[in-house]
Amino acid sequence: MNKKVVTFGELLLRLSPFGYKRIVQAESFEAIYAGAEANVAVSLAVMGVPSAVVSKVPAHEIGQCAVNTLRKWGVDTSNIARGGDRLGIYFIEKGASQRASKVVYDRANSSIATALASDFNWKEIFADASIFHFSGITPALSDSLAAITLEAVKAAKELGVTVSCDVNYRSKLWSREKAQKVMAQYMPYIDICIANDEEVTDVFGIPLEGADINKIAADLAEKYGFKAIAIDHLDSVSSNENYWQAMYYTNGQVYNSSRYHTVVIDRVGLGDAFGAGLLYGIYNEFDPQKTIECAIAASTLKYSIEGDSNIVTADEVLALVAGAASGGVQR
Amino acid sequence: MNKKVVTFGELLLRLSPFGYKRIVQAESFEAIYAGAEANVAVSLAVMGVPSAVVSKVPAHEIGQCAVNTLRKWGVDTSNIARGGDRLGIYFIEKGASQRASKVVYDRANSSIATALASDFNWKEIFADASIFHFSGITPALSDSLAAITLEAVKAAKELGVTVSCDVNYRSKLWSREKAQKVMAQYMPYIDICIANDEEVTDVFGIPLEGADINKIAADLAEKYGFKAIAIDHLDSVSSNENYWQAMYYTNGQVYNSSRYHTVVIDRVGLGDAFGAGLLYGIYNEFDPQKTIECAIAASTLKYSIEGDSNIVTADEVLALVAGAASGGVQR
Amino acid sequence: MNKKVVTFGELLLRLSPFGYKRIVQAESFEAIYAGAEANVAVSLAVMGVPSAVVSKVPAHEIGQCAVNTLRKWGVDTSNIARGGDRLGIYFIEKGASQRASKVVYDRANSSIATALASDFNWKEIFADASIFHFSGITPALSDSLAAITLEAVKAAKELGVTVSCDVNYRSKLWSREKAQKVMAQYMPYIDICIANDEEVTDVFGIPLEGADINKIAADLAEKYGFKAIAIDHLDSVSSNENYWQAMYYTNGQVYNSSRYHTVVIDRVGLGDAFGAGLLYGIYNEFDPQKTIECAIAASTLKYSIEGDSNIVTADEVLALVAGAASGGVQR
Amino acid sequence: MNKKVVTFGELLLRLSPFGYKRIVQAESFEAIYAGAEANVAVSLAVMGVPSAVVSKVPAHEIGQCAVNTLRKWGVDTSNIARGGDRLGIYFIEKGASQRASKVVYDRANSSIATALASDFNWKEIFADASIFHFSGITPALSDSLAAITLEAVKAAKELGVTVSCDVNYRSKLWSREKAQKVMAQYMPYIDICIANDEEVTDVFGIPLEGADINKIAADLAEKYGFKAIAIDHLDSVSSNENYWQAMYYTNGQVYNSSRYHTVVIDRVGLGDAFGAGLLYGIYNEFDPQKTIECAIAASTLKYSIEGDSNIVTADEVLALVAGAASGGVQR
Amino acid sequence: MNKKVVTFGELLLRLSPFGYKRIVQAESFEAIYAGAEANVAVSLAVMGVPSAVVSKVPAHEIGQCAVNTLRKWGVDTSNIARGGDRLGIYFIEKGASQRASKVVYDRANSSIATALASDFNWKEIFADASIFHFSGITPALSDSLAAITLEAVKAAKELGVTVSCDVNYRSKLWSREKAQKVMAQYMPYIDICIANDEEVTDVFGIPLEGADINKIAADLAEKYGFKAIAIDHLDSVSSNENYWQAMYYTNGQVYNSSRYHTVVIDRVGLGDAFGAGLLYGIYNEFDPQKTIECAIAASTLKYSIEGDSNIVTADEVLALVAGAASGGVQR
Amino acid sequence: MNKKVVTFGELLLRLSPFGYKRIVQAESFEAIYAGAEANVAVSLAVMGVPSAVVSKVPAHEIGQCAVNTLRKWGVDTSNIARGGDRLGIYFIEKGASQRASKVVYDRANSSIATALASDFNWKEIFADASIFHFSGITPALSDSLAAITLEAVKAAKELGVTVSCDVNYRSKLWSREKAQKVMAQYMPYIDICIANDEEVTDVFGIPLEGADINKIAADLAEKYGFKAIAIDHLDSVSSNENYWQAMYYTNGQVYNSSRYHTVVIDRVGLGDAFGAGLLYGIYNEFDPQKTIECAIAASTLKYSIEGDSNIVTADEVLALVAGAASGGVQR
Repeated sequence: MNKKVVTFGELLLRLSPFGYKRIVQAESFEAIYAGAEANVAVSLAVMGVPSAVVSKVPAHEIGQCAVNTLRKWGVDTSNIARGGDRLGIYFIEKGASQRASKVVYDRANSSIATALASDFNWKEIFADASIFHFSGITPALSDSLAAITLEAVKAAKELGVTVSCDVNYRSKLWSREKAQKVMAQYMPYIDICIANDEEVTDVFGIPLEGADINKIAADLAEKYGFKAIAIDHLDSVSSNENYWQAMYYTNGQVYNSSRYHTVVIDRVGLGDAFGAGLLYGIYNEFDPQKTIECAIAASTLKYSIEGDSNIVTADEVLALVAGAASGGVQR
Repeated sequence: MNKKVVTFGELLLRLSPFGYKRIVQAESFEAIYAGAEANVAVSLAVMGVPSAVVSKVPAHEIGQCAVNTLRKWGVDTSNIARGGDRLGIYFIEKGASQRASKVVYDRANSSIATALASDFNWKEIFADASIFHFSGITPALSDSLAAITLEAVKAAKELGVTVSCDVNYRSKLWSREKAQKVMAQYMPYIDICIANDEEVTDVFGIPLEGADINKIAADLAEKYGFKAIAIDHLDSVSSNENYWQAMYYTNGQVYNSSRYHTVVIDRVGLGDAFGAGLLYGIYNEFDPQKTIECAIAASTLKYSIEGDSNIVTADEVLALVAGAASGGVQR
Repeated sequence: MNKKVVTFGELLLRLSPFGYKRIVQAESFEAIYAGAEANVAVSLAVMGVPSAVVSKVPAHEIGQCAVNTLRKWGVDTSNIARGGDRLGIYFIEKGASQRASKVVYDRANSSIATALASDFNWKEIFADASIFHFSGITPALSDSLAAITLEAVKAAKELGVTVSCDVNYRSKLWSREKAQKVMAQYMPYIDICIANDEEVTDVFGIPLEGADINKIAADLAEKYGFKAIAIDHLDSVSSNENYWQAMYYTNGQVYNSSRYHTVVIDRVGLGDAFGAGLLYGIYNEFDPQKTIECAIAASTLKYSIEGDSNIVTADEVLALVAGAASGGVQR
Repeated sequence: MNKKVVTFGELLLRLSPFGYKRIVQAESFEAIYAGAEANVAVSLAVMGVPSAVVSKVPAHEIGQCAVNTLRKWGVDTSNIARGGDRLGIYFIEKGASQRASKVVYDRANSSIATALASDFNWKEIFADASIFHFSGITPALSDSLAAITLEAVKAAKELGVTVSCDVNYRSKLWSREKAQKVMAQYMPYIDICIANDEEVTDVFGIPLEGADINKIAADLAEKYGFKAIAIDHLDSVSSNENYWQAMYYTNGQVYNSSRYHTVVIDRVGLGDAFGAGLLYGIYNEFDPQKTIECAIAASTLKYSIEGDSNIVTADEVLALVAGAASGGVQR
Repeated sequence: MNKKVVTFGELLLRLSPFGYKRIVQAESFEAIYAGAEANVAVSLAVMGVPSAVVSKVPAHEIGQCAVNTLRKWGVDTSNIARGGDRLGIYFIEKGASQRASKVVYDRANSSIATALASDFNWKEIFADASIFHFSGITPALSDSLAAITLEAVKAAKELGVTVSCDVNYRSKLWSREKAQKVMAQYMPYIDICIANDEEVTDVFGIPLEGADINKIAADLAEKYGFKAIAIDHLDSVSSNENYWQAMYYTNGQVYNSSRYHTVVIDRVGLGDAFGAGLLYGIYNEFDPQKTIECAIAASTLKYSIEGDSNIVTADEVLALVAGAASGGVQR
Repeated sequence: MNKKVVTFGELLLRLSPFGYKRIVQAESFEAIYAGAEANVAVSLAVMGVPSAVVSKVPAHEIGQCAVNTLRKWGVDTSNIARGGDRLGIYFIEKGASQRASKVVYDRANSSIATALASDFNWKEIFADASIFHFSGITPALSDSLAAITLEAVKAAKELGVTVSCDVNYRSKLWSREKAQKVMAQYMPYIDICIANDEEVTDVFGIPLEGADINKIAADLAEKYGFKAIAIDHLDSVSSNENYWQAMYYTNGQVYNSSRYHTVVIDRVGLGDAFGAGLLYGIYNEFDPQKTIECAIAASTLKYSIEGDSNIVTADEVLALVAGAASGGVQR
């Protein structure tokens, strides 16, 4: 139970105006260091699961800040390489009411996108790992990183490390066509597949209209040999109010999670929190229903957390799984 | 299509406590430079319509700040006179739940309220103007300003500039009786009339109870010769939640806008955003239905924007007109 | 009508992260000086009722800050003793959506918990008092303070001062058993009893399940000789949304308050605002229905107020009692 | 020793950009409620001398904030009248290096400038007063206020209250000629006169060039019958660095204070802190040397205090008088 | 006298921790939009000289922010092209005492560095220009930009526009060798050359050790045909304290400026403020001594200004030239 | 060279008003987690020396924050026990000019002060340690902690770990007499002794007046068998300006450091930064002169760093040792 969950991906500097200010209104930005896979690692660490991030950051203060943030939350950073030119940046303004949140990416030419295969010794990295997790963002960053990701996935498989992948499609990073082609390479090595319903179309090319998501999940699991697949679904009433639910397919069975009606404080990292909650359940060998409930409860709590990373404890997730959904004051 | 929309009115320093703090709890105030007509000009400029503000500010730093704010958003400030004693100030605390937002005015004796007719050369000002817009606040500030406003309106008419007026009744500035009397002078010159339903009573003396707002609009248009009249209507559930809709009457036809259910981030400037959205449609010669949808969509987005001015682009307004009302994250 | 309401209890330094940040995310804390009984006194003072706080604070800057805060709001602090080691502290992070607000107490060994009987001259303190108010938190702080509280209650009774008690059960301070035993001592001296429905079980040992709260109120009033008893009830939909209502029993009659649907800005001090609203009605000799409406309206407004103390005026409370519940902008 | 020091003058809202930002760079302003005579009262209260402010503020939130600030520091506000239109405002940006601090006044038409004689009952106000203090700013605000000030001064004299006046010349409020004429009326009633060296010329018309300040002080004391006169002198190296010293003449003797070399955190209120320190010494019947040392030490400490009011305790002033001038950490 | 000063260069997003926090300690960054040539244009505009910036920014919010900042200060932005991938960023932490300020650049691949010759129509740009100003940073950004700069310089020369160049050597952008080679191309077209003493070595390859700076200036002027050359010199006592002076050579004569002893609030943009002050004098046809005094006085005031741009008025600069160097409070 | 420096002591929550605000003026506090020995560990980690803190913190969010801070900077926290009631707190306001910084302690009954011997397994803790460091604050916190400290010192000695002690006398924690008695127990086990000149009197009872500090150092080294002793000396001109120097005695030789004239940004942690710099030199086996220069240079840089911990890199310290003392901008 003391083996690590290792995640691989980009670390980013997130710059966001305070409150509901727009980027063009901002005189200052809150600075957070995050990234899809880092968010999973932080969330797991805060829930008490040993985790590590593998990445590459520039050898200057901004790179150091990213490392420091991970260390603060207890994530192992010993396999983060140093070098390259820059840390990717993204600007995000928080939406409200009918206005959507908006992201401006400035992440090209980052240290991780230009990393070399020799920056990572996967055999050492996976020495004490039980799960390897990455998302579709990692291979989307550059062809070379896509190749390194393939090496990583293969190495994990050889070393008996469970492979988890959040397909995480980003249309600003690559086309559906390219995503489908590249992601297809990894599929045979993946044990746990995480997606939202729209990504079923984006990354697997399966139309949703009129389809049965349970059947899609079963078909995908069979086609690629996934041990488990989780698909979440978000109904956005407005930028302040969502409904949130997921399904989970494993061992030939479908498990539906509870459906939560949420108030949105910060929606970024929702999917990462879901992935971390799922891996928390799997890592702890919970039964499938409890596993998917952990995933949906953890990510439901993410709605209430400022920043990209889901800073909630395992106790808090399990209390929500057990029904403590009405807020209040704990004193 | 490159002619300007010129607006005429007071520039104010708005001081507001941060977040939901009350004025008596505030240790600092956020400072914004705004004003009903300036808000219309800023909103138009951000949507890509050339606009200018005509006003007068004191020849010191606070006056300069007001000018700088307008310039920042791309508004032409070359016809803002300098002189007089002070910039008007208003304090506003944001309401929540059952508690209303509260305004404390400190705007007497401002540079604009004490401005002289000679401060403004309307012939020059209207040289490249297509629309002249003012609100009922401008004549409410002083008798001399009411007289200057009349000059402006007449000059616009003579020069073939479309005249737009948001009746904008403020009970703290003048009585209904005085408002009705003064505003009546301008009516014959007005092409586009903007009001909310309560102002129909306040400024035109027409009781709403049991009345048909469509009929009222038609009657007013006929009586005063308005080319168009827009009347908006707000249902306030609480300080955090509103319903928002409008009707538009032009060429003998009534057009009803969509009705939006909104979360309130900052409600101040709602009517100004509505006016700007309407003028945006008219300036671009959209059909009446699209015009009123622009007005209601622009102002619906205002609910999500901090400050008095509606910092949203034309693309964002048109996307909401086209149905993108559920928030989310654009990445 | 110029006599004071005197309250007795602990003054605390409240430290809370800004916005929705969690304690573990906070780089700074907002500092507020509060306390259950102080909140009642502040709320009364802001509503125009003369009030005083009796307490003890350390003779250093942090103690002085607590006194200064009370003075700022117009509360008499002349009977606050100086000495002892520390001001109690509590940390609170604001919950959102399904995540509850969380309190970390650090209040042991405070100046008030270790106060001596000789620190307070009750005869002098009650010289110009009409009402004495305390809550169940005060005796929960230490056995010696429980004894001092008993002295105070007896002195009040002897001097013809009305005694008000909010039973205010805090499970982190003492067990139900101890609370029931200690609180029982004060009951014979209490004229006005304030509780929420759960505290009926906690402090009086009466099960709620299937019970009639009106009957319970009547029974308690009879048993202990209360002139009046108010019981409030909160339905928490989430950390952002509550329903709030109360009942009031006096002179053999039950009075139900309006029920409000509220948005939560800061829920802390809700019960104290309720108590202050109730005492406001009693102090002004309103009829029972208006009294309980004042209590529920004042506390409903508290939901919209940052901090522990209900900074709303009597005019605002009475306007809500009169039906002004839809927010808006007052200008 | 329990009698009060009563001060009379304007309460102002001070708005200042944070740090060294200029007004034209500010997005927010720190809000402080102050005023020359209020600063004296606050400083005395913090040093343990009972004090009261007599003034008039508008009956709205901004007026209430001014009152709350005074109450916070322990100043008696029971003789502050309510009414009139506005609280005076001033904007100040902090200078640095060769750049001077800059003030923009917006204080015309304030409640106090338009106050009526009937707003103040001097007999009651002076009932338990030992000293009455005002500055030359008060009569400069309006002719009617100058007349009220004369009434106050005469009433004080009649009631045996010591009269203190800081001549406090402000060229933006009135001319030297008018100041000399108006101030001359008060001189016969003044017991303690406070000035800086430049004001000797501004208000008394005495050229400084080549003059002996000690002789000037003696002559003024003789001419007007001052019991004591204090004249301070500031050498400004830059906006960050000053030298500061004063002389004191009483009973035919000159006393020179220590001279301090200071770092400037906030220079505003320097003279008021000096006056308060002087009155502190006089109130406590210190010998003349210690009295002037208290005045110069208190005001030297003011250089280190943010805001207009000198928030330092008597112990801190006396420690500096006793030689603790090298900073350090007290732990 | 109404012709513009046109500057050409990169616009950057400057991100700096608040106060003296280091980058690795920062939880948020203040955001300023600046750039060496933009700083010159802003400073000139604030001093009342019409100015314009020519540059290229990405067509998204961050690019818009840069444009808005220039507009706010009154700079003409009509010749700023839109397109390319990103706005360059730099992080800066403020030094103190023995610790130097530190810059982390992230400016590669910016819109301006990748701009095309076709983005700029120099004939139109220079239509109403009297001076063209650029710095050595512009050609250092990319070879293509160096070529565009050469076009610009030649076009200016042809159109009779005075050419001003601040050699502004940045070792992080290019080597001395490359700088010397590239800059040499521009020299024949330059009328006004601005440098600091170290850059004489960096860019012109002239050793300073034992040299006479006056002679160097004369030689350079002769060699390249400069109408004027200004060389400034900074003595840094610490990060908080500098000495600052300059010499000016024109028409065969040397003019030495005053030497100022300064407190450092923000040193960034010092050289740009110097350049703007110099061009202010030249634009207004001041005599050489007054011109160099304007340059040194303007930049001395920059030490006291937060941000990169020297937000001081011409009146303030001229007052310092006239001797007002001791700070104080203007009220 | 990969062995750790282990430090043992209290972790504290430091709460400080922003800027130069006093505690009684503060509406919020900046929160930092620090402690004398933790500061040494953080400083060493940031300089690249592996370090660990041994302590005990409460099992709640505030305790977790302290751990997270250490992890952020790369300090090993695996031997921090959890339990007990609270984290000690101290409030500090920053002095300026003649006003001293002021500390209010609220650190009694902390988890570490009430820790048990069984909370620490020294054999394990010292397994990979090369140096053990503690300060006189640790035994001052409680008698039981003094006993645990003795165990630790003895264990270190037995295991061949170098023992370092900063005598760090705090008069608010214990008397000189008690300090002398308790500290005497540890002396025979100490290899490296760190003190300031005043502590020579406080802790060793040696009068400074007229004494030769070099002789005192030599005598102490001989008496207690110290391998090395460093004594630093601070001349405080004001709260903003200090002189700072130290001497070092080892192997019978005296080494004097450079003397720095410093601007004070934050003086807290000065001695800890000195100790860390000294241990940095010793750990890297620098010669004695370079070692003491590292100590004085590191702590000189601390003057410029906000917070208690010296966030400077080894490169920065070595650059100052090499003479880079004049600030400037590194770009």
